[in-house]
Amino acid sequence: MNGLAQYGAYLESCISSISLDDEPKNLFDPLRYFLSLGGKRLRPILTLVSGEIFNIPKEESIHAALCIELFHNFSLIHDDIMDGAPLRRGKPTLHTKWDENIAILSGDSLFIEAYKQLTNYPDQRLPLLFKRFNETAIEVCQGQQFDMDFESLSEVSESQYIEMIRLKTSVLLGCALEFGAILGNQDEETGRNLYEFGVSLGIAFQIQDDILDLYGDPELFGKQVGGDILSNKKTLLFLKAEQLAAKTNDPRFEILIQMEAANDKIEFAKTLFEDLGAKNESLTTMNAYYNQAMGNLEQLELNGLQTGILRELANYLITRKL
Amino acid sequence: MNGLAQYGAYLESCISSISLDDEPKNLFDPLRYFLSLGGKRLRPILTLVSGEIFNIPKEESIHAALCIELFHNFSLIHDDIMDGAPLRRGKPTLHTKWDENIAILSGDSLFIEAYKQLTNYPDQRLPLLFKRFNETAIEVCQGQQFDMDFESLSEVSESQYIEMIRLKTSVLLGCALEFGAILGNQDEETGRNLYEFGVSLGIAFQIQDDILDLYGDPELFGKQVGGDILSNKKTLLFLKAEQLAAKTNDPRFEILIQMEAANDKIEFAKTLFEDLGAKNESLTTMNAYYNQAMGNLEQLELNGLQTGILRELANYLITRKL
Repeated sequence: MNGLAQYGAYLESCISSISLDDEPKNLFDPLRYFLSLGGKRLRPILTLVSGEIFNIPKEESIHAALCIELFHNFSLIHDDIMDGAPLRRGKPTLHTKWDENIAILSGDSLFIEAYKQLTNYPDQRLPLLFKRFNETAIEVCQGQQFDMDFESLSEVSESQYIEMIRLKTSVLLGCALEFGAILGNQDEETGRNLYEFGVSLGIAFQIQDDILDLYGDPELFGKQVGGDILSNKKTLLFLKAEQLAAKTNDPRFEILIQMEAANDKIEFAKTLFEDLGAKNESLTTMNAYYNQAMGNLEQLELNGLQTGILRELANYLITRKL
Repeated sequence: MNGLAQYGAYLESCISSISLDDEPKNLFDPLRYFLSLGGKRLRPILTLVSGEIFNIPKEESIHAALCIELFHNFSLIHDDIMDGAPLRRGKPTLHTKWDENIAILSGDSLFIEAYKQLTNYPDQRLPLLFKRFNETAIEVCQGQQFDMDFESLSEVSESQYIEMIRLKTSVLLGCALEFGAILGNQDEETGRNLYEFGVSLGIAFQIQDDILDLYGDPELFGKQVGGDILSNKKTLLFLKAEQLAAKTNDPRFEILIQMEAANDKIEFAKTLFEDLGAKNESLTTMNAYYNQAMGNLEQLELNGLQTGILRELANYLITRKL
């Protein structure tokens, strides 16, 4: 992914030079802090890459890319409050370092800063950028609410779960890619194919993340393994295991749920989910979404577009050792 | 204000027919509840009235009006969380009736719904509407943060206070009026005069509100008298009294601050603030802003515009018995 590294550096320099007011300090200092925490910057890279397919220089697509990235950061700030998360990227979350009120309000301000980026396109492209961004943003909120609702729901179906992750994380990847097509004044079909590519890839990536949470190499995965299992989180892996255990009358699933949060619970889950076939089924579902994304790429290629870098990016995202 | 009553009814019917998704219920039911709580609907009325000056039918200006009103409601939902307010218009606030997480997220969604209203103008007016709305929205956040900061500041100057209320409440009135001019494709000067009229009127109105909090007739004022005094809130009246007491070495101001929250504290403040001349000085400041607003109207009239209804509206807002 050397080709992508240059985008990362460019993005960091653009993010660090976003101009924010100085006062009140309690509004803008927290934003500067949060934006400096880094991250993969995957979403804005998607916009830059997608724009490049249509010969939009990165200096022109950067505002749309920043719109997506600032919105993503806004949603993280508010999600961290809702989840009561103490850390983000190994550093204190905003509401921990300051307080909840400041995190709510500076989150709101960051949301406005995201919209402000779109005012850099005061031409015929603005209406569609603006419309698609609004539609995506409301879906992200819906996804977050479904996610919170699921915690207290006794039954969540697989399709409900997929719909939740589609809304919460994948549509923003789709929108980031579609932005490139809109900036390049492409037809609706091209925009739609890029969007669907992003959405399917996002779903595949999230399912991979669920699987890696239990089966990943902690060194490579970069976070504690088994966190989802310890909190009985309803991931795809978990829902498949629940379903398969019910079908085969396997009592171990009920035992797993009752187990206290400790290392033996993680080991127990690893074996159980393999025995039940939940790991394999999850991998199958992941691959189905990955292939769907590839189908969208092929369609774009049939229409004469050079999508090599998107293919490279998809491979990069879906290759971590399982 | 019979002329304005028709706008109120029209607005209520438009607000109640805003189309929101059904699911998740925990996201959209709270919004339906909050929007049904009513209120003066002053801000969107300003947009409808302003649009009418330029022959924009209310069916066309309604989306800009709703943008302003939905934004205002979003800011109330989040402010209520930050202030820990149990009631809004006599009914439970969102975070009380549901919970804080739901109030944060449904507030965010309402903010997006506000922006969505602007997508009804996908023409050459959109860039300016969008730009001015973003600028105003960030100012409202700044005002709210200054207001929170002031609680723990030992010294707040009069000009800091005026700047805070300008940002927190007045710029939105200005923007609501300016929207009418933008919809009517008016020149910048016209938009600016309408904006300044709204800002000055808003400041005058807020100062009046501060005075009425102590000296208003509870029947007419519609809320408990003396609330600001009981919490030692740094209103203009309070800051003037503080200043005048320092100048005259009047020890009663310090006594007031130390008094416990009870009815005798309110009576003590009433007398003290009159003795010090703080009430009169506040009225003078209020009138100065009111006259400034009238100056903007006169300028608009000199340019040939019919502003009778704005004059009527200003009179209506600034005539409550003091």
